[in-house]
Amino acid sequence: MPIVSEKGRSMPESPIRKLVPYAEKAYKANKTVYHLNIGQPDIKTPVAVMDAVANHALEILAYSRSEGSEEYREKIARYYHSKNIMVEAKDIIVTTGGSEALLFAMGSIADAGDEIIIPEPFYANYNGFALASGVKIVPVISKIENNFALPPIAEFEKLITPRTKAILICNPGNPTGYLYSKEEIHKLATIVKKHDLFLVADEVYREFVYDGLKHYSILEEEGMENYGILVDSVSKRYSMCGARIGCLVSKNKEVIHTALKFAQARLSPPTFAQIASEAALNTPQQYFDEVIAEYKDRRDTLINLLKGIPGVKVGYPKGAFYCIAELPIENSDDFAQWLLESFDVDGETVMVAPAAGFYSTEGVGKNQIRIAYVLRKESLIKAVKILKAALEQYPG
Amino acid sequence: MPIVSEKGRSMPESPIRKLVPYAEKAYKANKTVYHLNIGQPDIKTPVAVMDAVANHALEILAYSRSEGSEEYREKIARYYHSKNIMVEAKDIIVTTGGSEALLFAMGSIADAGDEIIIPEPFYANYNGFALASGVKIVPVISKIENNFALPPIAEFEKLITPRTKAILICNPGNPTGYLYSKEEIHKLATIVKKHDLFLVADEVYREFVYDGLKHYSILEEEGMENYGILVDSVSKRYSMCGARIGCLVSKNKEVIHTALKFAQARLSPPTFAQIASEAALNTPQQYFDEVIAEYKDRRDTLINLLKGIPGVKVGYPKGAFYCIAELPIENSDDFAQWLLESFDVDGETVMVAPAAGFYSTEGVGKNQIRIAYVLRKESLIKAVKILKAALEQYPG
Repeated sequence: MPIVSEKGRSMPESPIRKLVPYAEKAYKANKTVYHLNIGQPDIKTPVAVMDAVANHALEILAYSRSEGSEEYREKIARYYHSKNIMVEAKDIIVTTGGSEALLFAMGSIADAGDEIIIPEPFYANYNGFALASGVKIVPVISKIENNFALPPIAEFEKLITPRTKAILICNPGNPTGYLYSKEEIHKLATIVKKHDLFLVADEVYREFVYDGLKHYSILEEEGMENYGILVDSVSKRYSMCGARIGCLVSKNKEVIHTALKFAQARLSPPTFAQIASEAALNTPQQYFDEVIAEYKDRRDTLINLLKGIPGVKVGYPKGAFYCIAELPIENSDDFAQWLLESFDVDGETVMVAPAAGFYSTEGVGKNQIRIAYVLRKESLIKAVKILKAALEQYPG
Repeated sequence: MPIVSEKGRSMPESPIRKLVPYAEKAYKANKTVYHLNIGQPDIKTPVAVMDAVANHALEILAYSRSEGSEEYREKIARYYHSKNIMVEAKDIIVTTGGSEALLFAMGSIADAGDEIIIPEPFYANYNGFALASGVKIVPVISKIENNFALPPIAEFEKLITPRTKAILICNPGNPTGYLYSKEEIHKLATIVKKHDLFLVADEVYREFVYDGLKHYSILEEEGMENYGILVDSVSKRYSMCGARIGCLVSKNKEVIHTALKFAQARLSPPTFAQIASEAALNTPQQYFDEVIAEYKDRRDTLINLLKGIPGVKVGYPKGAFYCIAELPIENSDDFAQWLLESFDVDGETVMVAPAAGFYSTEGVGKNQIRIAYVLRKESLIKAVKILKAALEQYPG
């Protein structure tokens, strides 16, 4: 019998997926489960997006261009201009989600055995894309005590080897909610220029920043034309995760030329989703104002309640819709399973994402969880109450 | 300045893409170009498919399950049952096009440096997926003189090394139109069992077989549970290339478990396209009967006309909608470029796909082209007339 690949066997299961059987057990036991574990927003997709697809007039659902339609890329460029990111249609390749943009970025800049440095904790699926591409992730630890701010540049420099091809950041961060400052981006730009590395930035949460702060893109930083690769997605911005449209953006022509070859191999991004995404670009600022006000309210509620639980430490998120909480327990995998299997308050429990899966360094983050505040405030309040009761009763 | 990856630099451009600038030149010169070069059918997508999307009632465009929705996979399984392929929903992972199914298949079964044997000429994008996965393609030549039938099994055995992980076939074949017989599939099944290899079959053209022949899937063959991996797509079947929905199918639990990890990393296949693809499964047999009658008519017309051109040899396609033609020229890349740049009959010319890009062995296929019969009969007749005149006048 033939066997699967070593890389396939090494590929970790998603930290959340492992819990799914226990969640199903909880449903069967008629428990209500508050999902703090997922990044699927409950916010409605703009109506204009849904209407654009409903009103499509296609007779043949044909391939689009591998790099995405010219009109759509022109419009994306205009969106970026409004964010002070001066790129043109030719600098953009439309991808099937931010996921594919990451895959194309890794494939375009790194060969098997090459290394990419990533501040951890980081989005767990970076592991999957790295494994698929044969790339080694080299983590640099960021700490809850500092709200997961950029680790000192000296820590990055220690890790740079002849195989290092890039530094990858997520800004604002999943799972930390950390928003890098202009100064931090400038530091990163300086180090990649010094060592001839790429700086890849996953900016899919760009829109979600709070407290009057401003997101600063790596492509706003001067002199990043040859170094910067931006990964983006419509998924969170317009609450249209199921569209599967993202893009890869770079002023480096060689990067775009190379990524385009990967794009051509898979023919084209999905057509209906491009119709939806093009319509999404007309979304008025008011939509974001409302959504951001809603997330800010949830964040404030969540963080205040979490801080009120004895022994709980929590990172203060300035963007995205996640936070990392450190709990007075030993193993959050066991705790998350116990919450689903053996605990409830009046038939209700919570599902959380154990944070160890967001770290690449073995053993780190075992007492942390990631919480996504994608539930309505009333549900968040209930969920944190349940979490508090659970921590009081947890035998582990 | 950082540089792109070695694999990115090695990745070949699509054999058709290279001609695009010359096609654009032809358009600018106001030439009419008959496109014999692409696999984008001109057949209308079933109306019910387009209506299903137009009538969607979604308010939040959410992620679907990474493996595709349960309902859709149940329905796909029923479709397979009707084709005597006895698989269940759990054996199916819905992918973003057949492209992604191929990428997941390669990633799941082969590590960097592993080898996959493929009869050539083969679908050019296999090269891209192999490069992306670090996999080495080992070609075994099939010949126009034999209509591109399966090469002798001894030829495969000569190429098997400890790094060989699979044999990959496309059935019916792009670019050859060859339909493997039951006996040929049986021979392949025997050799993969003997050497503990996977047999991966790209069966996206399953529906398109002519002359009363029947497609025989690798999963109809007995005892293939652990060895067979089927790659499929709705793109050609329902003329919905822009949906980007395909699937990977295997009874081998380890393969599905592994491929699912790749699927989870990219979150989910596109939601609107799954709505469209689910509706497509209700397409009545009459649609296929009409489409197949149309393609058969085109094929007969095309092949007869090509045979009438002095010095032209042509493979006789029994399936799909392509054929390989050998021309009395030296270099079909140059010829294809000349057709667009320097030739016309009353302002009309043709665009063909040079076949060298479908071969992995250097220097083979240089006098061949691939023709896709995705144009109406009248256009095909005109296009072949132009091709004939071009061969008479070609100075190369």
